[in-house]
Amino acid sequence: MELKFSKMEGLGNDFVVIDDREQLVENKVSYNDLSIRVCDRHFGIGADGLIVVLNSESHDIKFRIFNPDGSEPEMCGNGIRCYAKYVHDNRIINKLEFKVDTLAGTIIPKVNIGEDGLVDTVKVDMGEPILKTKDIPFISENEIAISENLNVDGKEVKVTTVSMGNPHAIIFVDDIKTAPVSTLGPKVETHERFPEKTNVEFINIISRNEMNMRVWERGAGETLACGTGASASLVAATLNNFTDNKVLIHLLGGDLTIELDKNNNHVFKTGPATLVFDGILKI
Amino acid sequence: MELKFSKMEGLGNDFVVIDDREQLVENKVSYNDLSIRVCDRHFGIGADGLIVVLNSESHDIKFRIFNPDGSEPEMCGNGIRCYAKYVHDNRIINKLEFKVDTLAGTIIPKVNIGEDGLVDTVKVDMGEPILKTKDIPFISENEIAISENLNVDGKEVKVTTVSMGNPHAIIFVDDIKTAPVSTLGPKVETHERFPEKTNVEFINIISRNEMNMRVWERGAGETLACGTGASASLVAATLNNFTDNKVLIHLLGGDLTIELDKNNNHVFKTGPATLVFDGILKI
Repeated sequence: MELKFSKMEGLGNDFVVIDDREQLVENKVSYNDLSIRVCDRHFGIGADGLIVVLNSESHDIKFRIFNPDGSEPEMCGNGIRCYAKYVHDNRIINKLEFKVDTLAGTIIPKVNIGEDGLVDTVKVDMGEPILKTKDIPFISENEIAISENLNVDGKEVKVTTVSMGNPHAIIFVDDIKTAPVSTLGPKVETHERFPEKTNVEFINIISRNEMNMRVWERGAGETLACGTGASASLVAATLNNFTDNKVLIHLLGGDLTIELDKNNNHVFKTGPATLVFDGILKI
Repeated sequence: MELKFSKMEGLGNDFVVIDDREQLVENKVSYNDLSIRVCDRHFGIGADGLIVVLNSESHDIKFRIFNPDGSEPEMCGNGIRCYAKYVHDNRIINKLEFKVDTLAGTIIPKVNIGEDGLVDTVKVDMGEPILKTKDIPFISENEIAISENLNVDGKEVKVTTVSMGNPHAIIFVDDIKTAPVSTLGPKVETHERFPEKTNVEFINIISRNEMNMRVWERGAGETLACGTGASASLVAATLNNFTDNKVLIHLLGGDLTIELDKNNNHVFKTGPATLVFDGILKI
């Protein structure tokens, strides 16, 4: 059979997206095997993941995503934006905001339409930040850690800690280019006061509504972008009164806009989703 | 404009192939810039090269190929097979054998048709092997070097030398898996008796018409496949009377059939070309 697909990317994270609401693909090949095949960058299409659009009984639509090794993660921030653009632009969903059924629960993306009538950015609710040090977890005498001293090899480093479901330690710096991401990052990541380790964000404030960010991800090292890290960094910046509640963040992989809604204390992340090309693969 | 393309591969070497006989693409964007964009594996289609089908005044058809950095090499063995399948299967050329204008001169691929009516393998004339040691170049007292001793760190290694436009030293081994490719390979590559260095092939003879090959490429290290290396290895095997004139060679990247035509002393290489998928990219 001929499999129509779209190749999409968000902040450089790239996906093959297919519509299998009629489950014709799944009847022929498991998504796990298909993902291994299509993600291969030489013999397949090449992608960081396979995203499948499916019908849902309880929601507007259902989202599943598969890794290049065939395994199925619960969610993916860059992937859900590409998914939202796909279902809107292909008129599978005719609303700007809709409920998506995922393994991580309900996600409600809101799409923004560009001049071409197609989605250019997508806003996603990242939930409420967790500030209590015991819940992050960060070992501290304070209930909340705002620019608290952390002793790293005898030197004091000021960290603000925030959890977005995963722990983050935010460090404000004067120059993002010379930030000690690869030297200080791993030391903070594995510091004894973070019993579950932590992601480490280096933030350079440009203005009340703009900042630069580089991230040392727990277990991964420096990466091009991290959605929960950007969200936590905006929260940390407001706690320190360095910025307003809505900030454009420049990451190595591209830009995200993060907003803390004072009404419900939820963080909203808005980022790009791009169609790279459409294709047909015989399976 | 919408750019129709095919993604193809030969022995794992993958290409974006476009038909620009009407030069509508070239009027909009240089092939160099387009290649940089489409070869990118995250923001583009992802490929080892961009292949362009063009009209030729002197030949049946013209071939151009561009690297991921935008530069234009003269030829590519895996690429020309994909190109031949593309122009045949898309009915741009209605012959099984045709003259292609390339920067490396005239190439005459011959396509073999599979059960689906489409090209499955392509045969290409690799030209005449060069055996004279002074022309390879290999410093030797003999006019032709057949299993000649080469002193490597005090040990004698038997090499047969052949040039297919580039130098090759062929070493016959009993077991391809344990062949000292990464240890002996670089020592032979840079041996003082090869003034222009050399590619090094390790060959394990299976029968008079089948052999295994691993290759240490000059300046590149061990690679999955090397077309001139496979051609030189068949010539070396016939010089030693280890095989007949036509042999199936198993490389890490796939299989090639190499034949030495006794009538004209030309080497012919037959290998696979595969359509991975068709796509449309907006440019």
